[in-house]
Amino acid sequence: MKKVVVLGSTGSIGENALNIARSFPGRFEVVGLAAATNGARVLEQAAEFGVRHVALMDRETATATRRRAPVTVSVSEGIDGLCELASLPEADLVVCAIVGMAALQPVLAAIAAGHDVAIATKEVLVAAGALVSRECTKKGVNLLPIDSEHSALFQALQDSGGVPHCVRYRDRIDASRHVEKTVEKLILTASGGPFAGRPDIDFAAVTVEEALNHPRWRMGPKVTIDSATMMNKGLEILEARWLFDIPVSQIDVWVHPESIVHSLVAFTDGAQIAQLGVPDMRVPIQYAMTWPERIGNTALPRLDLTKTGNLHFSEPDLKRFPCLRIAREAAVAEGLAPTVMNAANEVAVAAFLEGRIRLPGIWECLENVLKDCPSASAVPELDEILSADTWARHRAETIIT
Amino acid sequence: MKKVVVLGSTGSIGENALNIARSFPGRFEVVGLAAATNGARVLEQAAEFGVRHVALMDRETATATRRRAPVTVSVSEGIDGLCELASLPEADLVVCAIVGMAALQPVLAAIAAGHDVAIATKEVLVAAGALVSRECTKKGVNLLPIDSEHSALFQALQDSGGVPHCVRYRDRIDASRHVEKTVEKLILTASGGPFAGRPDIDFAAVTVEEALNHPRWRMGPKVTIDSATMMNKGLEILEARWLFDIPVSQIDVWVHPESIVHSLVAFTDGAQIAQLGVPDMRVPIQYAMTWPERIGNTALPRLDLTKTGNLHFSEPDLKRFPCLRIAREAAVAEGLAPTVMNAANEVAVAAFLEGRIRLPGIWECLENVLKDCPSASAVPELDEILSADTWARHRAETIIT
Repeated sequence: MKKVVVLGSTGSIGENALNIARSFPGRFEVVGLAAATNGARVLEQAAEFGVRHVALMDRETATATRRRAPVTVSVSEGIDGLCELASLPEADLVVCAIVGMAALQPVLAAIAAGHDVAIATKEVLVAAGALVSRECTKKGVNLLPIDSEHSALFQALQDSGGVPHCVRYRDRIDASRHVEKTVEKLILTASGGPFAGRPDIDFAAVTVEEALNHPRWRMGPKVTIDSATMMNKGLEILEARWLFDIPVSQIDVWVHPESIVHSLVAFTDGAQIAQLGVPDMRVPIQYAMTWPERIGNTALPRLDLTKTGNLHFSEPDLKRFPCLRIAREAAVAEGLAPTVMNAANEVAVAAFLEGRIRLPGIWECLENVLKDCPSASAVPELDEILSADTWARHRAETIIT
Repeated sequence: MKKVVVLGSTGSIGENALNIARSFPGRFEVVGLAAATNGARVLEQAAEFGVRHVALMDRETATATRRRAPVTVSVSEGIDGLCELASLPEADLVVCAIVGMAALQPVLAAIAAGHDVAIATKEVLVAAGALVSRECTKKGVNLLPIDSEHSALFQALQDSGGVPHCVRYRDRIDASRHVEKTVEKLILTASGGPFAGRPDIDFAAVTVEEALNHPRWRMGPKVTIDSATMMNKGLEILEARWLFDIPVSQIDVWVHPESIVHSLVAFTDGAQIAQLGVPDMRVPIQYAMTWPERIGNTALPRLDLTKTGNLHFSEPDLKRFPCLRIAREAAVAEGLAPTVMNAANEVAVAAFLEGRIRLPGIWECLENVLKDCPSASAVPELDEILSADTWARHRAETIIT
């Protein structure tokens, strides 16, 4: 029985994680639930799964929820409450599906407590990859990707050729078979968003509605805009860099509009291993939760390539999608550059969604903020990361207004 | 240092296996070499690799070769000589690249001696799958596929989801993670040969030259004709059935003209794992030899899907390619049906190559011979297999002439 804490349990990934726990009652016990503001739903979930510990990021909601909670359920609040939940001693696995930088401290708390973390929040590894990676190594914690691309790489790396860095296997690690010995490239596939297949598009004229119209995945507005600028893939390069402990130069991006091949690993003997499937977040969520096992699930969709049609691949156009280039440069620069880029991007995307800037304003903002990126220690510590994040958000706001 | 015997060392797969041994001198020691008739080349190879035991199938060649061999090199002959070589006590791995049924007894000898076998000869598993499988299980021997499709499945199954049946891992087996628990389908890809993309073709009018013109792979004439009739894929269904101990109903075939995706495994959670690469036999040969490790080799070609173009998949047309249906039926029938089909097919293909029958004559011959297929014990023993093989060859000849 795996004891699971779900951070961000009321969002789409959190609800799906609970669906999986519901489908395999003998396998998972939910022991903690946290959300930002949806106290009512958290209490429903707690009642269904018999959970005794919940947390709410928003303190007012927490107070209100505490009043309505049964006596058996404790309600913590704020970032400390989430950290408390993430480090519950009985937990085996913490599923982190919180949006944004708010996930960082709870994830560090889970790692400090020695719990494996299934991670959906890009920001944690983008903004604090070196720190999180160091702490995982220190504690022998497995970091299990939920993103479909990274889950694909993770699945492909289960091959005898390499043990992913993110997985320390505790008693199973065999250092001689580490990724670096056999992996030549990790290849992230990118749908390319709504504009990759439209070379004629004038980015300055793109409306919010057009940018939000993603051809393959239904996602939140922030991620959808990141997909339209291909910053999404830039953030994923950073995630892969830390999850698999591989130099940025060994991470490639192929545009693949069908989103069927979720990513590929190219080995040093010329073989490539790919993970494929109908685009559906439930597959990687379940894999992260059941790993190192696979569990049959007839509710998940089956892929039949003889019905789906042809698969296309092309190189990304870095001239048309400068965010991908900027992200790669920040990844190479290391230090606080990825932290700063991530923070500035959040501000710029919000400004675009509010109609305050045009799409090219996003990459202009990033380049401007990154010019004055503060220097940092080799592995930036939490306080440096949080200061850089705050600095970059202010700086981006100043540039935009 | 892995001590290797190469059966069929002068053919294309054998020479490639020796190339790999040559590329990694610290890793492989060649201890035995066997061929059908090319004694001169075997002696050259023996000199280069310092091999002291060689065997030749043809007894006259063996006598002539023995005269020219240095005193340090012993030359065995005939099927007994090959069996002797396959069971050399110092061997760790026997690479079997002999064409046809002549491989069966040497493979059984290698298994009886407890040596792992890297197998390229389809006939062994097609004609004697149940027997070979039983003997491997008895001896804890690993059967490593060299065929690119089966190597792809084997590589994809290294995934945590399943341990292939063909690999007993000796000290590493974990029965709870056996294929049957997590694998829904094995999907063999098929180029479809020269005629899959030509629905207008009149098979009765196809010339030998047209049938030998394979679009992707350069192979011997027998295999190329099998590819044109798609019998090749039928034989591969049988190989997969025994290698991975999976019911025939769980083995699918997808036509994929580019031969880039070498095969796929569909797991019960909806995920598929595929192995991809530029079509090149050296990749699976090396993998079979280095498994459970992967070894970097810059001489092997790299795949860049952004340059290769699109990937197409479709269902095979069983009406146009009756051999695929016949092979599936024989696989389901079990007993001696696959043995008989394989033998009749060899005779019919030879007759086609000699201009004695037209292409549809091949499947007509198979259906005719299979009608009177002798019954057999559940796991046909060697003598039953050899008798059925002889019977089927005579029967096919009678039908053709």
